[in-house]
Amino acid sequence: MSKFAEPMVRLIDELKKLPGIGGKTAQRLAFHILRTNDEDAEALAAAVRDVKANLRLCTLCNNITDIDPCVYCSSATRNQRLVCVVEEPTNIATIEKTRSYNGVYHVLHGTLSPIGGVGPEQLRIANLLTRLGEVDEVILATSPTTEGEATAGYLAIELRKAKGELKVTRIATGVPAGSDIEYADEVTMSRAMEGRREF
Amino acid sequence: MSKFAEPMVRLIDELKKLPGIGGKTAQRLAFHILRTNDEDAEALAAAVRDVKANLRLCTLCNNITDIDPCVYCSSATRNQRLVCVVEEPTNIATIEKTRSYNGVYHVLHGTLSPIGGVGPEQLRIANLLTRLGEVDEVILATSPTTEGEATAGYLAIELRKAKGELKVTRIATGVPAGSDIEYADEVTMSRAMEGRREF
Repeated sequence: MSKFAEPMVRLIDELKKLPGIGGKTAQRLAFHILRTNDEDAEALAAAVRDVKANLRLCTLCNNITDIDPCVYCSSATRNQRLVCVVEEPTNIATIEKTRSYNGVYHVLHGTLSPIGGVGPEQLRIANLLTRLGEVDEVILATSPTTEGEATAGYLAIELRKAKGELKVTRIATGVPAGSDIEYADEVTMSRAMEGRREF
Repeated sequence: MSKFAEPMVRLIDELKKLPGIGGKTAQRLAFHILRTNDEDAEALAAAVRDVKANLRLCTLCNNITDIDPCVYCSSATRNQRLVCVVEEPTNIATIEKTRSYNGVYHVLHGTLSPIGGVGPEQLRIANLLTRLGEVDEVILATSPTTEGEATAGYLAIELRKAKGELKVTRIATGVPAGSDIEYADEVTMSRAMEGRREF
């Protein structure tokens, strides 16, 4: 017999499925929910349900959105002819924080990973290739990791195949701002030297 | 009265002047030296003396060297028309590790720092300006820190003033190789976007 009533066990089990939530934490969260007022519990349940019911992927860029097309793709003030390709929806926040990018995005939802069984079919590439008609430049902003570089390399070829005159660029790899070159690894330093620009 | 004999106290005091060596460590090192054989103790003393007696700065590039000009400046296989400006002699090792640079160096021995009282006169800039006749490109490889950027900016102006047709470049600031853009701060991400290159 379980040490908790069945609804409690069920809640703990469901909470345990969340990333980084172990048995102890799940139990603490479940007891907090049990003791909280009805409104908060109902609000949490509704929020969980709503996120699944009302969020979907933008048909243009695959960003997670409640309106389709998403805020970026439907914006009249953003440059719709400049597309920045990112791995995950969270990467959009990283680029938006710079306050210096005014184009739109395209979310791949992953990177090529032959070992992980992720091929081009598993990524959302098709709707990028079909929107190139209205696009002047595609910035490949996948991470400078092995998978990110492989994905960028693959995309560059596909993009050129789809539209020969398209400008395809890659974000700079180099020494991070504010850090001493003393701590730069050799690959980063090598890329920083190769990628040097006229001052 | 001291708990150690006077020569021991003197050795501990001298060792304590080294960076990162506190009282306890100095004492441990001193006792190690006391117990070690005569040859090792003599070799250490001689090495300390020699480093001061035989090392100097290269008159061309200010690198620390035992021959003048230094190995880089006197090398027939390195491109003497390409000069990479660095803050400290240790930065040369960082760039050499990339195995992709074949030019020579110029060591500033510091960065501009108005707060720290370091102005252009305190840096070794004069012998950079006088060697430009035989130089095609100067790469400014100071760190992308506030001081490093200020130093690069100052040098770019002085270099152009000294030789108008000189190519002056700056190493790339961007997302470090192998790291996820998720962890890039906004300044680095902003620079990575600005510094994007044709794929």
